[in-house]
Amino acid sequence: MTIKLYTLCGANSKQTFSPHAWKSVLALHHKGLEFEEMPVPFTAIPNIENGVSKTVPVIKDGSRVVADSFLIASYLEETYPDRPSLFGGPGGEAAARFVESWTNVTLHGALRSIILGNVHDCLAPEDQAYFRQSRETRMGKTLEEVAATREQDIKSFSSHLAPLRLMLKSQPFIGGNTPLFGDHIVFGALQWARIVSTVRLFEDNDPVEAWFERGLDLYGGAGRSVPAAA
Amino acid sequence: MTIKLYTLCGANSKQTFSPHAWKSVLALHHKGLEFEEMPVPFTAIPNIENGVSKTVPVIKDGSRVVADSFLIASYLEETYPDRPSLFGGPGGEAAARFVESWTNVTLHGALRSIILGNVHDCLAPEDQAYFRQSRETRMGKTLEEVAATREQDIKSFSSHLAPLRLMLKSQPFIGGNTPLFGDHIVFGALQWARIVSTVRLFEDNDPVEAWFERGLDLYGGAGRSVPAAA
Repeated sequence: MTIKLYTLCGANSKQTFSPHAWKSVLALHHKGLEFEEMPVPFTAIPNIENGVSKTVPVIKDGSRVVADSFLIASYLEETYPDRPSLFGGPGGEAAARFVESWTNVTLHGALRSIILGNVHDCLAPEDQAYFRQSRETRMGKTLEEVAATREQDIKSFSSHLAPLRLMLKSQPFIGGNTPLFGDHIVFGALQWARIVSTVRLFEDNDPVEAWFERGLDLYGGAGRSVPAAA
Repeated sequence: MTIKLYTLCGANSKQTFSPHAWKSVLALHHKGLEFEEMPVPFTAIPNIENGVSKTVPVIKDGSRVVADSFLIASYLEETYPDRPSLFGGPGGEAAARFVESWTNVTLHGALRSIILGNVHDCLAPEDQAYFRQSRETRMGKTLEEVAATREQDIKSFSSHLAPLRLMLKSQPFIGGNTPLFGDHIVFGALQWARIVSTVRLFEDNDPVEAWFERGLDLYGGAGRSVPAAA
């Protein structure tokens, strides 16, 4: 039976931008599993599978419902062990938790001031109201206050990619010679920015940009199915 | 045959402080292999095994000589597959390269201004001269210029540990429920600081400090065999 994957969209239902949902899109492709993507706007998340989760992604696989991008990846790895591995063993699964934490703290942290305004602008009016209220409560600042450091955060963003840039001297993917879920995690952050914003985040001739382009090419160019913001 | 491990020491041959050598100390203990540690000062590195490497650690295992902490870990994993794994599979080995890059860029980068002066001070005179010249050439700054940002780098150091702090909410080690080489990599950086400097790097009640203490306890308290700077 085809797996259902709930993702997040803007006013345009084809503009699916959630970094966390993108991890699950790539994970499902990586496993070679058929799935149907069901994009929902922020205010429709409570309607997904009887309100199972406050966030996307959520998958429904037969009777099993799983929320959270990491738990989904672990579920797929356990349930479909004969498909290509997402982790390359238990050590890879554990280390992917470090990659996730680094991505959330460093990349999402830096992207917040840079693209939250763009995210807001791509939403339908009722989702804009929800987004503003929930984010401003969480951050203790207005969206405009968060964006106050935008220009300097754009300038310094590339420095946050330095660990990845150094690693790429040893190997082409976080997974080694081929991508694993750790690559999908970092990809999700940069794909989020690509889809909602025209901001340039890479240095010229940046090996990290070359890695991101390789990520966009994976699984028949799945990442390019949603165009970059224009 | 007992493996020889060449590490780095100050004027006191028992003060073995190299972050990279500590990774190999823990890796050998992790594998349960007998080894003899041979601490050498900076200026004696060219004498190790006919000048095989410009840096330590170096191991000699029978007729095999291997330099570089990561290559040593990979060598041990491949040569002693029946011993406890250092990587937990190929995905863990690849991801450890990301942990290594993050540690080198972020932690070693931040520790440079904080502890290079302490490293210098613990060396014998001829090693101090070598250390000053080689580091000043590499960094394009005098040791004193590098230390100019010391106070602010001490204050901000804890923020660099945020990804690890967040990960520790999911699991007690980078390796998951038990430590792997990724833990040894980060441990090496903090052990380096512990041995040469009295600087306090952690927040109060920092989960990262609790993780570091667990690291000091591993393998019969191997990390505590060299005392903290006093």
